[in-house]
Amino acid sequence: MAAEQDPEGRAAARPLLTDLYQATMALGYWRAGRARDAAEFELFFRRCPFGGAFALASPPRNGTPDVPRLVCPHAGLSAVTSFPDVQFLASVLPPDTDPAFFEHLRALDCSEVTVRALPEGSLAFPGVPLLQVSGPLLVVQLLETPLLCLVSYASLVATNAARLRLIAGPEKRLLEMGLRRAQGPDGGLTASTYSYLGGFDSSSNVLAGQLRGVPVAGTLAHSFVTSFSGSEVPPDPMLAPAAGEGPGVDLAAKAQVWLEHVCAHLGLGVQEPHPGERAAFVAYALAFPRAFQGLLDSYSVRRSGLPNFLAVALALGELGYRAVGVRLDSGDLLQQAQEIRKVFRAAAAQFQVPWLASVPIAVSNNIDEEALARLAQEGSEVNVIGIGTSAVTCPQQPSLGCVYKLVAVGGQPRMKLTEDPEKQTLPGSKAAFRLLGSDGSLLMDVLQLAEEPAPQAGQELRVWPPGAQEPCTVRPAQVEPLLRLCFQQGQLCEPLPSLAESRALVQLSLSQLSPEHRRLQSPAQYQVVLSERLQALVNSLHARASP
Amino acid sequence: MAAEQDPEGRAAARPLLTDLYQATMALGYWRAGRARDAAEFELFFRRCPFGGAFALASPPRNGTPDVPRLVCPHAGLSAVTSFPDVQFLASVLPPDTDPAFFEHLRALDCSEVTVRALPEGSLAFPGVPLLQVSGPLLVVQLLETPLLCLVSYASLVATNAARLRLIAGPEKRLLEMGLRRAQGPDGGLTASTYSYLGGFDSSSNVLAGQLRGVPVAGTLAHSFVTSFSGSEVPPDPMLAPAAGEGPGVDLAAKAQVWLEHVCAHLGLGVQEPHPGERAAFVAYALAFPRAFQGLLDSYSVRRSGLPNFLAVALALGELGYRAVGVRLDSGDLLQQAQEIRKVFRAAAAQFQVPWLASVPIAVSNNIDEEALARLAQEGSEVNVIGIGTSAVTCPQQPSLGCVYKLVAVGGQPRMKLTEDPEKQTLPGSKAAFRLLGSDGSLLMDVLQLAEEPAPQAGQELRVWPPGAQEPCTVRPAQVEPLLRLCFQQGQLCEPLPSLAESRALVQLSLSQLSPEHRRLQSPAQYQVVLSERLQALVNSLHARASP
Repeated sequence: MAAEQDPEGRAAARPLLTDLYQATMALGYWRAGRARDAAEFELFFRRCPFGGAFALASPPRNGTPDVPRLVCPHAGLSAVTSFPDVQFLASVLPPDTDPAFFEHLRALDCSEVTVRALPEGSLAFPGVPLLQVSGPLLVVQLLETPLLCLVSYASLVATNAARLRLIAGPEKRLLEMGLRRAQGPDGGLTASTYSYLGGFDSSSNVLAGQLRGVPVAGTLAHSFVTSFSGSEVPPDPMLAPAAGEGPGVDLAAKAQVWLEHVCAHLGLGVQEPHPGERAAFVAYALAFPRAFQGLLDSYSVRRSGLPNFLAVALALGELGYRAVGVRLDSGDLLQQAQEIRKVFRAAAAQFQVPWLASVPIAVSNNIDEEALARLAQEGSEVNVIGIGTSAVTCPQQPSLGCVYKLVAVGGQPRMKLTEDPEKQTLPGSKAAFRLLGSDGSLLMDVLQLAEEPAPQAGQELRVWPPGAQEPCTVRPAQVEPLLRLCFQQGQLCEPLPSLAESRALVQLSLSQLSPEHRRLQSPAQYQVVLSERLQALVNSLHARASP
Repeated sequence: MAAEQDPEGRAAARPLLTDLYQATMALGYWRAGRARDAAEFELFFRRCPFGGAFALASPPRNGTPDVPRLVCPHAGLSAVTSFPDVQFLASVLPPDTDPAFFEHLRALDCSEVTVRALPEGSLAFPGVPLLQVSGPLLVVQLLETPLLCLVSYASLVATNAARLRLIAGPEKRLLEMGLRRAQGPDGGLTASTYSYLGGFDSSSNVLAGQLRGVPVAGTLAHSFVTSFSGSEVPPDPMLAPAAGEGPGVDLAAKAQVWLEHVCAHLGLGVQEPHPGERAAFVAYALAFPRAFQGLLDSYSVRRSGLPNFLAVALALGELGYRAVGVRLDSGDLLQQAQEIRKVFRAAAAQFQVPWLASVPIAVSNNIDEEALARLAQEGSEVNVIGIGTSAVTCPQQPSLGCVYKLVAVGGQPRMKLTEDPEKQTLPGSKAAFRLLGSDGSLLMDVLQLAEEPAPQAGQELRVWPPGAQEPCTVRPAQVEPLLRLCFQQGQLCEPLPSLAESRALVQLSLSQLSPEHRRLQSPAQYQVVLSERLQALVNSLHARASP
């Protein structure tokens, strides 16, 4: 994926897309002679979103060249060299700022920055770093805002999508259609990308198809239907049979004939179905004979949308084409789907077109977790569910609240010891491991100091659960290191997985989580524990600060 | 503002940033010979956000060249000519699509598109168009998704910011700092821009300063404080006096002397304040002697942050510099501000530095409407309030839910008559007027057919409130037309107001709204009424659809 093609990456790479305090701190570090001190930050969240017990990691990814742009010598930060950017920074910093500071900014690059990350699509838990970023203090400080801006929302959307997939079950097709409800273009692009990663099947967002390879879907809106009055004369009303042989037929005329049969069958007057709606269906079918879908609720579903759809679908069927679906966007979606399925089955029998019985029914209209659970219940005749606002805005919790905290400088651990215990940080450069039981299920995650030896499978380990008075012991059957080196010396270290591979990892990861942690309401909390040495470091820094 | 400078505009201008159904409908219209039918759409919302009775209009604006990009012949849509875009569209449309359709797309421009809009920063109410877009059916249909994506969120954020300003009152300084909580870069840029428009004083987002002229603010984070241990040796610890005359002094040494006085005054041991925090404050003060702010809660506010701040502030004061503030980011912000103000007053008296009594206190930490109301209460000593997540994500309602509906084709009114009354639309090409009383207060908005004569000040008017059985009468003292022609024949029609002008209009508009409509909780609903002829048209289309 060429960087030039990706508007999100392009916008993100702007060096001034940051909080002013990053620039003021940069000046402070520089003035203190500390700009090049070796530093390490961790990006993590403190609580799982939506009241659940898991989240999904979504570091800036392959398709989005965000990491290299942000931390690469020839893009990202080095663009501070641009004259307007420096000029603007100078205009908001003190007028007597030493020009040598701006020279320092001009010479910045990210050749000394190292990034480790949780693999995309793996499970993430509170306090476990999604990213570890180390390098010169001034540079890695500057990366805070753009990294938080890119990682938090992607992880939130992926987690939200995974929950919606868990609720929907594996059979329902889920379509993300929230571009218009996003916070602008790249919010929409991110939402489409990471909804797919989290378990959706497709998106309405064409750009997500073009740039990220997300399958795209969409047919027609109410405006298409209401734009027809029925008096329009199509320039070419003829449609050739699907097999390509034989003469074409006038589809509108054919649909009119079928309408009489359908109305008789349904007990409706032939004048009741709206002629404009039928003309719209015919027009759409002429353009998409192999992919005809009817949108049923521009007027009355029962007295207009349904008979018009059946008339056009049966006319198409006579030519060898099969309609691919109907869509509903208002009213009681579950109830209407049951009624429509009954009508389809009866019409399939009446007119001897068996495929009509199983035409997919798609629904949309402000579907949230609760509404989805109802639509996914046993016996539901809904096949495709379009989710917009709820997929994109994550209204239960519209921000993951990730933070980016300093854990070490010059090889020495650092800790924020604020009086608010929830806002305290875990000091030191760390490693993270996931412990699994003999059945492959997840037991807990362990955070330890980077220099400690890794836990060994089959060996007993003493660890400290958060807030515990005593350590506990665990004997894992398997141990997985969690953080992978992904960026070093200005380069990505390994090819990143494809979006489809990460999407598969999501489902695999969720299957390893025990039901009590996977449950969406009031789940058991998954434990993230500290090694004895990390706990001892926390205690000693506490003691030192409270003389 | 050059288009090239604006990443949001650049991303938005991509022709494939749209829902697939816009492209499928385009093919449908084209196949039906209707691509060039004259059509009109309206963009509006159905309910005011956040349980309030008003919203603010934020059409795509001046600084963002969105409208011209989207609807200009030489940008926006004509970029469908790009080979990769056409190639991608062809890959998702039926393989036997007539190549002439793609030729049609290639030749598209927006020279026949007309846009009318509510002025930026004016009040908007349910059903009143924020935008009216007319032009060739295929083209104005294609504009649906990008316009919704750009307008909805901007209006939502501006409205949210106006509410927060109403709660805070005119005196408190409000800083938007939510870039990291946005749905990516342009979400953050939009949030910063429209929070300012809605009534905030400044933003942390440097790009919003550079591209939109929003005042930017920011000082230091906890990472800056915790990065210092106290053992660092600054390359140049000397600071010259503010007046520029006399020898420089070692600020760290001077602060150390003051620390003893401060600790004695506060009854603290001189070892209690964290030496690293003090070193960080000294480092920041060396870089920003005229803009020193202390972040007080990296360790203990009372035993460390406050005495360290006072020591450095008093050392600076001796050199003729005045500290500009302190910041708190955890704990009970209101309570701590009261305590800090007491300490400042006592220290101002004790050390005979009167300005110290009134050093501004800034607070942040997940501040929502409720928390803001507490911080803004009478007697609060908080001066500056930083709001991030709540300003950007609008968690009470993270989407405005705007829609874009067809109201006329070929001069004939169109209406969606779905069985869900809330989803019905108002047909016909319309004009909108705001009626005011003799005291300048807003009475109601009137929607009428475009061809009707405008209501006249002082003349009685019969109008239909929504759902009413009978019309009512009103005699306005003033009548204001609401929709302004802003784009025609590929050109903006008039210079758009500056962001500052629109920001002033917001406050003026709110002052014209009566208290019962301006109230944030359970307000009286502002009436949007229909003219008799528009009501008659609605009735006749209803009757025609229910034979």
